[in-house]
Amino acid sequence: MDLFFEPLTPISFLQRSGEVFADRIGVIDGERRFSYGEFYERCRRLAGALSAMGARDGERVAVLAPNTHMMLEAHYGVPMASAVLVTLNTRLNTVELSGIIEHSGANYLLYDSAFKEKAVEIADRLKTARGIRLTTIEAGSDNRTNRTSQYEDLLASSQRVETLPEVDERGLLSINYTSGTTGEPKGVMYHYRGAYLQALSLVAHTKLDESSVMLWTLPMFHCNGWCFTWAVTAAGATHVCMRRPDPWEAWRLIRSEGVTHLCGAPTVLSSLANDSNAAKQDRMLKVFTGGAPPSPSLLEQLSSLGIEVTHSYGLTETFGPILICQWRPEWDDLPVAEQARLKARQGVAHLAAVPPRVIDREGNDVPADGKSIGEIVVRGNVVMRGYYRNHEATVKAAPDGWFRTGDLAVVHPDGYIEIRDRSKDIIISGGENIASIEVEQILASHPAVLEAAVVAAPDVHWGEIPVAYVTLRPGEHVSEEDLIAYARQRMAHFKVPKRVVFGDLPKNSTGKILKHELRQRLWQALQ
Amino acid sequence: MDLFFEPLTPISFLQRSGEVFADRIGVIDGERRFSYGEFYERCRRLAGALSAMGARDGERVAVLAPNTHMMLEAHYGVPMASAVLVTLNTRLNTVELSGIIEHSGANYLLYDSAFKEKAVEIADRLKTARGIRLTTIEAGSDNRTNRTSQYEDLLASSQRVETLPEVDERGLLSINYTSGTTGEPKGVMYHYRGAYLQALSLVAHTKLDESSVMLWTLPMFHCNGWCFTWAVTAAGATHVCMRRPDPWEAWRLIRSEGVTHLCGAPTVLSSLANDSNAAKQDRMLKVFTGGAPPSPSLLEQLSSLGIEVTHSYGLTETFGPILICQWRPEWDDLPVAEQARLKARQGVAHLAAVPPRVIDREGNDVPADGKSIGEIVVRGNVVMRGYYRNHEATVKAAPDGWFRTGDLAVVHPDGYIEIRDRSKDIIISGGENIASIEVEQILASHPAVLEAAVVAAPDVHWGEIPVAYVTLRPGEHVSEEDLIAYARQRMAHFKVPKRVVFGDLPKNSTGKILKHELRQRLWQALQ
Repeated sequence: MDLFFEPLTPISFLQRSGEVFADRIGVIDGERRFSYGEFYERCRRLAGALSAMGARDGERVAVLAPNTHMMLEAHYGVPMASAVLVTLNTRLNTVELSGIIEHSGANYLLYDSAFKEKAVEIADRLKTARGIRLTTIEAGSDNRTNRTSQYEDLLASSQRVETLPEVDERGLLSINYTSGTTGEPKGVMYHYRGAYLQALSLVAHTKLDESSVMLWTLPMFHCNGWCFTWAVTAAGATHVCMRRPDPWEAWRLIRSEGVTHLCGAPTVLSSLANDSNAAKQDRMLKVFTGGAPPSPSLLEQLSSLGIEVTHSYGLTETFGPILICQWRPEWDDLPVAEQARLKARQGVAHLAAVPPRVIDREGNDVPADGKSIGEIVVRGNVVMRGYYRNHEATVKAAPDGWFRTGDLAVVHPDGYIEIRDRSKDIIISGGENIASIEVEQILASHPAVLEAAVVAAPDVHWGEIPVAYVTLRPGEHVSEEDLIAYARQRMAHFKVPKRVVFGDLPKNSTGKILKHELRQRLWQALQ
Repeated sequence: MDLFFEPLTPISFLQRSGEVFADRIGVIDGERRFSYGEFYERCRRLAGALSAMGARDGERVAVLAPNTHMMLEAHYGVPMASAVLVTLNTRLNTVELSGIIEHSGANYLLYDSAFKEKAVEIADRLKTARGIRLTTIEAGSDNRTNRTSQYEDLLASSQRVETLPEVDERGLLSINYTSGTTGEPKGVMYHYRGAYLQALSLVAHTKLDESSVMLWTLPMFHCNGWCFTWAVTAAGATHVCMRRPDPWEAWRLIRSEGVTHLCGAPTVLSSLANDSNAAKQDRMLKVFTGGAPPSPSLLEQLSSLGIEVTHSYGLTETFGPILICQWRPEWDDLPVAEQARLKARQGVAHLAAVPPRVIDREGNDVPADGKSIGEIVVRGNVVMRGYYRNHEATVKAAPDGWFRTGDLAVVHPDGYIEIRDRSKDIIISGGENIASIEVEQILASHPAVLEAAVVAAPDVHWGEIPVAYVTLRPGEHVSEEDLIAYARQRMAHFKVPKRVVFGDLPKNSTGKILKHELRQRLWQALQ
């Protein structure tokens, strides 16, 4: 009996805040300020415009933009048109971006004028090489002067949608592309139900409310901003957009806008803590971090700045955070070092997540002894619907209904999970995933290179950085600088190895490269 | 594609808190204290015991108890056995209670020994009159001495359930009986999905967390404690049970247990504010109220005691609160009288609720002018599944998919709803619903009474009280005291008229009693 049933969708949060908080500030972007009423109206107009141009009924709409009001509006306007949102990592190059757009089947691209060159190149490439005609819409980059962009004209001239679309709550809301271990991008499918529950749970955990102010230091193109794009709106809090996570500018905004919340990888927090503009605020600043555990010294530094850190753990496949290092009041009195040790743990399922399991190779749960290592596996409503147009990868990632995260962890006696290693060959640098195999293949494409192995080196600022071990072909030569320059032309810059070490690679009897030996060498060299 | 899908159920909150907060205090009841680990274990044992005795697979289990740990455990143990929870209003008499139990089809009754006499009478009555064999389980009333009740023996000897049951999230979790306008009790069916979303939304709105302490001044038998039975557990907060809402004892517990949250009708809050034991606490005490708007003087009194009030509105049919008078930071600076006026409004949909409508007789939305009156109608996930075994009443209550609340309201220009009157003939006294027709029928059953009309009189303490207007048969006589005594023997005491006025009843040309005229008379008499 479906009497009174209502599908769960995060768009309902904008409807509520657009009405209840109509005259309160919803979005700040440079000198532009939109009330929640205006924000809601703009999203409805965007939906009307997209619908009118055919971007509806499950059509994919890609967005290439930094954290701007347009990016935020796309998170509502696109699904309000019953279309599917595909946000793009602006750090990728045009070859990578074209590949993702083609895979997603998007025929529409919203872009910020800061990426005009990239957008034009992508459109040209798709047209020339693949015969795809991409409809592009440019939004102004400088909001002080450029209020009459193509995007603004479109909004001004369009009819707003009057009613929100009927949805299947397990239907497709967005696709978030991630680097798989093979380097082939995989499109992680988010459903409305998951985004709704993730957002509601985040509001409960972060205590976001109508007097909160979120500074967007986290890219919205990462897991739709860990679903905070929807959570902040649910709370009726103010979004403060930031085009680049510049720490000096961040501190200026923290002060001028009264920021209460922000998110970011430890790298971002470290930049904030070490900036010359850093200063303790009257109000506690709440920070959500993930991607790597925050170090004890960083935690101490942040604490002295009045910043309270919550450590969380997640993947693109889990709508962002799925584990949270749930703090217990009795830990407040422990020595700082002990607090840091506890906070370095990834923790437990958040309110809307199913408790994860940590399993050994036979699929049995490891004992909660803080020693036995197993792989973290997850399921539940805040796990994706699957990989877009890649059923094989979906099945492989979840052979038994539990998604394999590729992260190896222990379970402590109190049930908190702590990651020890990764089973997948991924390097996480500044919150970005790098598939080592992808970097290796490009290095190996250099005429002088025989073979290459890329591993993660620990780095105070970035968490990890890629380092390449390369064997040259007999008689050939290339310098470290030249090889790095070669790589920079062929991949997003964050993926490029920071160092190249030449020499033989350690291998086992069957010829497999022993990466753990390379990691040991690196660690020894660093000590 | 149902990959990773997990049905929503509030039982998952106890699983989480039972694991994450295993060693933190979950429940305090007199001198007994249970950690979340123990609370979880006891509920799993209760489920095992119920299952073993056949109370499973949709069987109904009734509970007659004040706010005790057993009552709270039943909110988890019963659904963990896949049975359906039927909590009973302890203020009803045995005829009323027997009728409800029979209607629910419950074959099991958990009761607190304070209600032993009632329980025995109910069991006898059901057996004698209806041939129903009720299995009863007694829990000890005095927790200081009586730790070896039938209930405790059962828990001690039973096998705990190992895994939580698979559920259909729209399946039947509990039935909450309410007085309909006809006086016939109606069983409001709660589904798992609604209780889960209601609880999660309440956590977000109330900011309940693991350091919160909830004092149970609200009866858990009212809408399962407005779903706070599940919300408090979700937050990992501590439940403090109270068998009677005694204000002196409440203040003692507020101090000794560090209470941060409580709920209750304005009547309860007024008793608290006026108690000799009242004193301002260091910590802000957050209160959720509903059933009637809190008066300006009460709000002022509470504020001086460090009590922050959130006004909400709901019905049994809406899992408790569905509207919330969402406070805006800019109202903090208004004069107290103005704040009270704003806070007297019922407000807007909470986070998990669908925005309500206020419609005129033709079904059109009334304008948001603060003047035009219409009926509040609701739908969405926090509205019941329907009335148990009463499809006709369900259809009648929601002819078009929108549930008719019977409350007449205006919509203010800012979208906030404020109730002006009730279209249904219900009196709300101290948070309890009284169907005037039921009281009228019992008064009319007295041999001396020709006809009776019962209306609500405003009352500072109770919000409303029932007052009877009675016409005697020619030549017959009964005194006010005797008629009230007659009524007290035949209905729950809270339903009994506080005054009886004898005389002719005003009628229209077709002989219909004009209740609004009686109300006017009452108001004039009170001025």
